[in-house]
Amino acid sequence: MLSVSEAKQQLKSAEARSPLLVRPGFLIRRLHQLHGSLFLEETRDFSITPVQYSLMTALAERGELDQNSLALEIGLERTSVAEVVPRLQERGLLERRPSRSDGRVKLVRLTRKGRNLLRRMAPAAQRAHERTIDRLPAAERDTFLLHLITLVEANNDVGSVPFRLPRP
Amino acid sequence: MLSVSEAKQQLKSAEARSPLLVRPGFLIRRLHQLHGSLFLEETRDFSITPVQYSLMTALAERGELDQNSLALEIGLERTSVAEVVPRLQERGLLERRPSRSDGRVKLVRLTRKGRNLLRRMAPAAQRAHERTIDRLPAAERDTFLLHLITLVEANNDVGSVPFRLPRP
Repeated sequence: MLSVSEAKQQLKSAEARSPLLVRPGFLIRRLHQLHGSLFLEETRDFSITPVQYSLMTALAERGELDQNSLALEIGLERTSVAEVVPRLQERGLLERRPSRSDGRVKLVRLTRKGRNLLRRMAPAAQRAHERTIDRLPAAERDTFLLHLITLVEANNDVGSVPFRLPRP
Repeated sequence: MLSVSEAKQQLKSAEARSPLLVRPGFLIRRLHQLHGSLFLEETRDFSITPVQYSLMTALAERGELDQNSLALEIGLERTSVAEVVPRLQERGLLERRPSRSDGRVKLVRLTRKGRNLLRRMAPAAQRAHERTIDRLPAAERDTFLLHLITLVEANNDVGSVPFRLPRP
């Protein structure tokens, strides 16, 4: 690990190269974009986006969900969920039916085809996730992930899109 | 700092809550989204997006640039730059003129109004960036930033959108 003053020194030198390099938001946008490219590269054969993959994972975990709950599970705008769901439905990867208790509520679940696709693409998606952080020294990857988890959970009340995490 | 085995234990417990919580790509998407909300909250009065702010920062740093170089400075698709530039131009924040050496090349630079706006919004933008990571213990923020810088630079050859960083 770096000492505090070594870290400060390295950040100063990064800032001298570009002020963007010490802006968390810029770095996160860039890393998000790079992960998107890695995900596409690894999972190209499946034609599933990262957000679609998150959504299908949530359904695999939780079974059947209404669209509002689904939005909360993955921290996505309801309007985005309302766009993604029909697209996956057209491909036969999930199905919707009216709730028995309230006909206005539509429940969503994976089809067998959806579950199969999810299983088949898991190793490729996993590689994309690993490659996103594999340039960090192995000993520091866990720290980086824990920092991300801390920030995502701590900021969960920010903005219009909460994410419902089961508490530990 | 956590020991290696404590970190592993914490990640295991996060994974038990949701498999999404240990996927770097999911966490980065979510943090990107949260930063967007914080940026909007802090800089609402200026009607400038994070990407527009990066672009204007690059022009403030580098002076006049053609659009391809501008795309490289901020690691953005050329097509996105071609959308953002006219919007800022309409608002009188930047101006374009044909290059003297090659009339097909358009050079972009900030106007006085653009420089003023950038200066006035800097404190608000800075607060958004700080708030994005301020839930980490102070001693760990620098480490987190250095990890982000490492990953962004190391993955720079991935995908179709490189980012031209001055080398140290």
